[in-house]
Amino acid sequence: MSQTAPLAATVADLAEALIACPSVTPATGMVFDCLENQLAPLGFEVTRFIAGEAPDGPVENLFAIRRGPEGSRHFAFAGHLDVVPPGEGWTSAPFLPERRGPEGQELLYGRGAVDMKGSIAAMVAAVTHIPPETGTVSFIITGDEEGPARFGTLALIDLMREKGEIPDLCLVGEPTSVNRLGDMMKVGRRGSVNIWLEVEGVQGHVAYPHLADNPITKLVAMLAELDAIVLDEGTDWFQASNLEVTDVSCGNPATNVIPAKASARISIRFNDLHTGEGLAARVAEIAQRHGGTARPVISGEAFLTQPGAFSAMLAEAIRAETGVEPELSTSGGTSDARFLKDLSPVIEFGLCNATMHKRDEAVAVADLEALARIYEQVTLAALAG
Amino acid sequence: MSQTAPLAATVADLAEALIACPSVTPATGMVFDCLENQLAPLGFEVTRFIAGEAPDGPVENLFAIRRGPEGSRHFAFAGHLDVVPPGEGWTSAPFLPERRGPEGQELLYGRGAVDMKGSIAAMVAAVTHIPPETGTVSFIITGDEEGPARFGTLALIDLMREKGEIPDLCLVGEPTSVNRLGDMMKVGRRGSVNIWLEVEGVQGHVAYPHLADNPITKLVAMLAELDAIVLDEGTDWFQASNLEVTDVSCGNPATNVIPAKASARISIRFNDLHTGEGLAARVAEIAQRHGGTARPVISGEAFLTQPGAFSAMLAEAIRAETGVEPELSTSGGTSDARFLKDLSPVIEFGLCNATMHKRDEAVAVADLEALARIYEQVTLAALAG
Repeated sequence: MSQTAPLAATVADLAEALIACPSVTPATGMVFDCLENQLAPLGFEVTRFIAGEAPDGPVENLFAIRRGPEGSRHFAFAGHLDVVPPGEGWTSAPFLPERRGPEGQELLYGRGAVDMKGSIAAMVAAVTHIPPETGTVSFIITGDEEGPARFGTLALIDLMREKGEIPDLCLVGEPTSVNRLGDMMKVGRRGSVNIWLEVEGVQGHVAYPHLADNPITKLVAMLAELDAIVLDEGTDWFQASNLEVTDVSCGNPATNVIPAKASARISIRFNDLHTGEGLAARVAEIAQRHGGTARPVISGEAFLTQPGAFSAMLAEAIRAETGVEPELSTSGGTSDARFLKDLSPVIEFGLCNATMHKRDEAVAVADLEALARIYEQVTLAALAG
Repeated sequence: MSQTAPLAATVADLAEALIACPSVTPATGMVFDCLENQLAPLGFEVTRFIAGEAPDGPVENLFAIRRGPEGSRHFAFAGHLDVVPPGEGWTSAPFLPERRGPEGQELLYGRGAVDMKGSIAAMVAAVTHIPPETGTVSFIITGDEEGPARFGTLALIDLMREKGEIPDLCLVGEPTSVNRLGDMMKVGRRGSVNIWLEVEGVQGHVAYPHLADNPITKLVAMLAELDAIVLDEGTDWFQASNLEVTDVSCGNPATNVIPAKASARISIRFNDLHTGEGLAARVAEIAQRHGGTARPVISGEAFLTQPGAFSAMLAEAIRAETGVEPELSTSGGTSDARFLKDLSPVIEFGLCNATMHKRDEAVAVADLEALARIYEQVTLAALAG
């Protein structure tokens, strides 16, 4: 294992080099040096820059491009070098990558193994086999995907727009596989909005309720109405949108006092029948009708990359390598695909996610090699157009 | 002012002597010495005792009795010598009684002036004018009415039962008047029960609600059902019973997490159509139906001293002294009448309550004198039978 990974390195070697650079969000410095040293020898022009200020910055980002002939198609890989904190109880040190297990079934352990340094290693390995004249390939890599994500992929998109480097298709390497490599790709994501609800009343003694105005009564009626909403029944590609009350609070210790204020928080995960703003307005109307207020924070809008040529190419590459027919899904949380969809059609596909964000995060070495071959196949297909 | 008030002392002198003995709950020692020194010279046999242990004790209590001729009727005064903490911002020191105001409109300031050392002084003044041969008079005085009240009046009732000194009627000197002395007496009180509600669910990520079980959804449905209950429409002598949710809590800081547990607290003030146990069972059934549990703490049962001869005697004494027609009410919080009603018919009547529990608690000296005459009149009427 070395900082400048040789071109002849295996995918697992590349992954190990990246894992060996501790990079809890926000990732900076060494892990970017490592990736730059892997990409530069392959002919990539690497641009690194710092974006944003406290509290949600600064954030390090990397854009690397290897241009094909004039007018050739442009295929982009996207991902992140930052990882979530390792937590405790690991069998081996989280930032000292270690391979364990019988030959042919070896697992590579380390924080980021599947989310998503392993995927980035597979991307690098894939492009080593793609002749530059096939077309333009780029890497859109941020150091802040697991954090606030305000100055990461968004800043990279700004840079690419400035440079006029707009890809035709984009593949995000998030760990989307569930039980076997290849069983799921994500062709979209639900949107997410959190809304803080508050009701003010008039404090008083419980023995004299006519002199008080109980805010909890209004809050309960408000939440009951919100809980009763059926947002939709789902669509061809999306689950039904869902609203959950995630907190209620009042903080009144006195048994004989009607409190002055009560509050709650809801989270809505929604499909492409809705927008964050539309849902926020709908909740605000209900909150106001019950004498309360609503403060929304939209985390991301729903989007769908309509299944078609791109998903078919990827599915074909997956089937050829693994024999598995991938499910086209829009389930789960948010990822940077919510931003990248404004740049080009985007699909997410990567390793098995069973150990992501957990202790003893690990990837099968065989999966790394298979993923590199799938990435190579889909890149070739995408560049062929 | 002296510790041993002379029999010729005015009501205000007697009240001042009591106020000058600081006696924040639980009251002990000096303030009881003071009352004993007022009652003993009037021919009262005084029994003082300490009851209970930590945390709700020990509590000092006083029972004083002056027996009339064999077979004569027994009229009891009841009350408390403890006071609530003075708080801040007083014009004069709360335990240094001070009379202020123009002659004839003097107010006596001090903690306990209306709640209820002033009333106790009026009781003492009343009995100075009642010849012992008229009948039996007693004082049931605790040092813990404003506190937990577990070892106060309840212990006094035990003592009286042991001694076989059961009164025919009992008058509690709580400050029941509202705008003018005499405008309200209390012929009963609502009951009170607090119930702690809890719902357990299964924690999970909001993006995967099918893998979680949101306890807030159940809690909201439970509270909405509880809020919708109409317990009754009130009775001839009672307001409608009322249920208030006094707290909700969850304590989940994470916007993307469905919490494991949620809780709430309700307070029910109820009339004599209900019992605390009956209401607790009804709420428990609703809680269980929504997957939750209910833990009730009954503070007191509702009771009514059916308006009749006793209330008529008291109303006549009030009218004669003040010209005011008293309202017979069951409103407000709880008092020790909730215990005394098991001993004999009980009515509460006392000073104006506007300043009770507040800073600059004060009583009109004229009201003290008028109250002493009302107490004297009603005692004479009660002993006449």
